[in-house]
Parts: sequence; C-alpha cells; structure tokens
Amino acid sequence: MSEIRNRQWRVARYPASNEPISSALFEWVENSVPEPSDNQFVVKTLYLAPGPALRGYLDPNHKQFLGNVPVGEVMRGRGIGVILSSKNPDYAVGEYFVGSLGWQDYSVQHPRGKEFVFSTKKISAPLRPLSLELGILGQSGATAYFGVLEAGRIKAGDNVLVSAAAGGVGSAAGQIARIKGAAKVVGLASTDKKCQWLVDTLGFDAAINYKTADLSHQLAEEFPKGIDLFFDSVGGDILNTGLAHISLNARVALCGFIATDYDPHANIGPINYRNLLYQRATMQGFIVFDYWERFAEAEQALRQWHSTGELVFCEDLSDGLEKMPQAVEDLFAGNNSGVKICRVNDEPA
Amino acid sequence: MSEIRNRQWRVARYPASNEPISSALFEWVENSVPEPSDNQFVVKTLYLAPGPALRGYLDPNHKQFLGNVPVGEVMRGRGIGVILSSKNPDYAVGEYFVGSLGWQDYSVQHPRGKEFVFSTKKISAPLRPLSLELGILGQSGATAYFGVLEAGRIKAGDNVLVSAAAGGVGSAAGQIARIKGAAKVVGLASTDKKCQWLVDTLGFDAAINYKTADLSHQLAEEFPKGIDLFFDSVGGDILNTGLAHISLNARVALCGFIATDYDPHANIGPINYRNLLYQRATMQGFIVFDYWERFAEAEQALRQWHSTGELVFCEDLSDGLEKMPQAVEDLFAGNNSGVKICRVNDEPA
Repeated sequence: MSEIRNRQWRVARYPASNEPISSALFEWVENSVPEPSDNQFVVKTLYLAPGPALRGYLDPNHKQFLGNVPVGEVMRGRGIGVILSSKNPDYAVGEYFVGSLGWQDYSVQHPRGKEFVFSTKKISAPLRPLSLELGILGQSGATAYFGVLEAGRIKAGDNVLVSAAAGGVGSAAGQIARIKGAAKVVGLASTDKKCQWLVDTLGFDAAINYKTADLSHQLAEEFPKGIDLFFDSVGGDILNTGLAHISLNARVALCGFIATDYDPHANIGPINYRNLLYQRATMQGFIVFDYWERFAEAEQALRQWHSTGELVFCEDLSDGLEKMPQAVEDLFAGNNSGVKICRVNDEPA
Repeated sequence: MSEIRNRQWRVARYPASNEPISSALFEWVENSVPEPSDNQFVVKTLYLAPGPALRGYLDPNHKQFLGNVPVGEVMRGRGIGVILSSKNPDYAVGEYFVGSLGWQDYSVQHPRGKEFVFSTKKISAPLRPLSLELGILGQSGATAYFGVLEAGRIKAGDNVLVSAAAGGVGSAAGQIARIKGAAKVVGLASTDKKCQWLVDTLGFDAAINYKTADLSHQLAEEFPKGIDLFFDSVGGDILNTGLAHISLNARVALCGFIATDYDPHANIGPINYRNLLYQRATMQGFIVFDYWERFAEAEQALRQWHSTGELVFCEDLSDGLEKMPQAVEDLFAGNNSGVKICRVNDEPA
C-alpha cells in the first residue's frame, strides 16, 4: 500500500488585496496516508464544496468565524468522504462523513461538539450523487432553508427577490420560497445564460441579468407592489438597489456580501437602508450554524422536496483536486450555476 | 368678540437645501376666528409640539408621510387645544383635543378615521400641564414605547444605547428601557450639559457627548459585551459607529435620520450594516402610526409609570406662537432637552 499517497494543497502565502485565488498561493505536496489514533478515523475525500468563506481564511484582515489557515497548513475545506480506517466504534469503515476534510485525499477526523454539527456529520442514508450532501441536502440547502424561513419569514403570497440566484445557496433559496407559496420569485444573475437557466430549469418566474440591465428599472417592472422578501448574498450596490424597492413590512435576509467583502474600495454602505423605516421593514443577518438544533427539520424538508422533484439540485462540477484553486476563483467570478463542487476521488459503486 | 383674531403662520416659500428654518419662510397673518359647520368644532390652540418631520413638509424632494404644505397655507403642526365652539355632539365645548391644529390660534376640526388616531384624539382625563399629552403621554412617549418594545424587542438585562437621548423620543426611550429591565442605558447627546441632565435627572447610567468624545472608543468602554438594543433617531455616522459595537442577536430600532435626512451631502449608508450578519442582528424601522390599535396599552403604561415617578417628563418650552420657526430650528440644532413644546395660549385654570 505504500504507493497510495495523500495529495494535499498547503497554503504557501496569502493573496494581495485584489489578487485572485490561484494555484500560486498553494503548494502541492504528497504525503503518506495517515493512521488513526484512539477515537479517530481516517476519511477519504470524495467531493469538496468550495465556498466564498474560503477567501477569508487567507485574509488576516477579514472578519470571519473560523480564523485564518496558517501558512504551511493544509487548506481548509468542507467535503464528503468515506471512512477508510477507524479506531472509533461509532464510525465504521465504509460509512460516509461530511466535515472539514481539507484540500487533500485523506484526513484524520474525530467526533466534534455540537457547535460543528453542520461541518461534521455522519451521513446515515446518503443519496446519490454523494455531492447532494454538500449541496441542496447539506449546508447550501440548510442555509437557504433557514434564511428563507427565519430571517426572511416567508409568507404565502410574498414577492421574492434572490440575488446570486444561480449560486448554491441562492438557487435553493428561490426554490424554497416558491415551495413555501411565494407569489413570484425573481433571481439576479450575471449572464443571460444563467438567467435562462433559472427560469427554465429551476422554475423562477423571472431572472434579471444585473450586469446588463437597468436594475432599478427592472425591479420596478417585476415588483409593481414592491419586494416582500429580499434574500441577499451580495451586498453593495445590489443590496442598495433592492432596498429601494421593498414593500411595506418587507424583510431583507442578509446571507453574505460577496460583492464587497474582499474589495477594500467597496467601503460604502447602502444609503437606502432608510427605506427600512419608510417601509417599516426588517433587515436581519443570519448564519446557518445558529440553527444546528433544527438541522434535522431542514434535512427532512429538503429531502422530501428533493424526492418529489419540487427542489432541483444543480451542481457545477470541477474534476480533480488540482482544480480546487480555480474552483474558488470561479465562485468569485460568478462562473458557477448551482453549487460549486470539486470531485476529488470517485464515489464507491 | 370682533377683537379676537386668529394669528397664523402661513408658508411663504420653501427653504433652500441647507437653509435653516426661520421666520423668513413664513408669513404672519391675522384672520378672524372661524365658525364650525355641521359636525365640526373649533379648537383653541394651547400648545404646539414641533417635530423633525416639519422640515419635510417644506421640502418637495423629501420622502414623507403627510405630503408638503402648499405655499400660502397655514403651516402644519400637532398640538393640544380646548374646544371653543362645536356643532358635533361628541365634542363638547371645554373638552381637550390633540390633533393637527396648525400654527395658529384657532382651527376647525372634525372627527378623523382611525388612521389618524395619534394625531386626532379627544383627551378625556388630561393631566397637567396639558403639554404632557403632546410629550411623554402622547406621540413622543408612544413612539418610544413601541420602538423599545416592538422594533427593539427589549429584554431584561439588555445593554441599551439611545441616540438623540436628550430629545423628546430619546429621553422617553431610555427611561422605558430602564423600566423594562435594561441592565444599562447609555445616551448620546451633543453637549456636556445635556449629558449631565440625562444621568442626573433621567437616570441614564451614562451619557456620551458624541461631539467631543471618540465615540467608538467610548462605546467600547461602556459596552464591553456589546450593545443589545440600539434605539437610533439619528442615522449617518452615529448609526454606523453604533453598528460596529452591537452584540450577538442585537436589535437596532430605526426611529429617524435627523443627522442625514435633510443633508444632500450625507449620501452615504452605514458600511457597518455588515455587522448585522456577523452578529446575526436585526435592524428594523418603525412608525408609531402603525400601532394605533395598541395606543390604549401605551397610554395606560405611560400614565402608570408617570404617576409612580418612574417616567420623568421633561419639556423644553418656548413661549408664544411667534417663536414656532425658531423652535423648529432649535430641534435641528439639538438645543432642546426633552420634548420641544411651544406654548401658544395659556391653559384654562
């Protein structure tokens, strides 16, 4: 077995402020496969799901939840894998596991406290492809679920706007809003092709290419009575323009700020926050980790909707561990339709 | 009776964008006292309560609820008066009435729909001075009450920041927060004298002169665990700085934007809105009119707290109808401590 190596991307340096994520930031190393100690088990990575948070792990100035990955360490990343060897009776060889596997083939794992329920979880009855568990049945789906239901307080008849609608979370959020009885769901995306996809494949009522459209004019057309629920993962100008079109008692669910989070020049807040008063509206930030106690509820609902075909899973697949740096950059360039997934090793049959 | 005249301030022109409110904008005229028609009654103005909204009535570019006052018309204004003559059996001569009396001695009134419950109301058991009904027992108190309880969702143990704390609404909001069990109430004001008054007279735990202090540093000192409830009537830099210090699950109640509302150069939103996500917090606008169905509840609570001395009423009194333009400008200059009131005619004994 000495020929099996553990391929890894380790952090070589942090990017400059506007430098894209690329393989130049990482070192590709090959080590031996680790062995588990007592209570541990080793997981073979099958898929990784790069998210926008990854860039923050490489930015010491960025406010975030998990801290930086030190230079020299394996890059952090969530994935699903299969248990290869185990010295923990609760984690059997061959079982599937979602967690912080890192950008590598093999990782040593141990059970985590409840605060990491979303990032460390044994999958008892996985659906295929296993990447579903990273996408609409996993953290992307749960983020959309709690954002739409809790921060968004969706009501039947709501007119809903979703930004970054072609992304992993946004594509789920729009569908969940529709399932929950929204009167209209409109998505924002960066290309005509993605807009078409939102309408044709995901069943959005309309989609707006915010890069080419007069966004404010289009929102006025699509929402003559105003936006009741705005699910926003973008921030910046898009949030500000959306705020100008909210309805009475609207809810704005803040999921992220990919437009401005890593741009030191985008240092301007949304002046239309004043519309929150004029419309007696609410803007609320949320983080999926806060809902770990209700994850079973989300999981059950998402699986149910997936099984009936109401909730379509779309992944944007890269192939091979070597593609991970590019996969992250693709996210920031908005190149993905659906949940960005990188296949690291083939699923067991 | 022909010697009794109805003195009026009528709008002569609208102010330029940065022009202060002054008597130059109004025309002083004296007319005869009006007579009521069927269902109407005539009210003699005793007190007027100028509020920040008044400036909006003179600004065609300002988004607002009641619309502009046309040039040539009597300036709009809320007040309390006594019924002088009546052709409505429900409104008897000698009864007290709160409503949109205008900047004048005598106005013709009629019963309004429920949407104006706050601005048109017969006072059945008025306390003295009657200006109480315009202040802490009236719209200022009710605004603070619903802002703290509803948009602010006050909880026992909250650490509370109130901006414009020496103003009519802010001074009530801080006291109501304390009554509702806040662990700490800190006010922001523009002079050391007002700060001292907040602590000594109103029982705030601390007050910060935001004009001379390093506000962010002071907030960090006063709120080592963060601000749980921020009751803001100011907007602009103060809102932004406060947002930087909110705690997990904090609530920001937006009551107004006096800092930026009439300043065309203050066109920058609060970049720290992003902290709403990091802290899973909520920013919510509210307007007291929305709570008309619960006004009796607020009235009962405010009277109860006032009767026990828990809720101190402070008014900043100007004397004489001729002082109204200056009274409004005083509001914007932040010269008042407590509810700004203008005495137009003496209370009946």
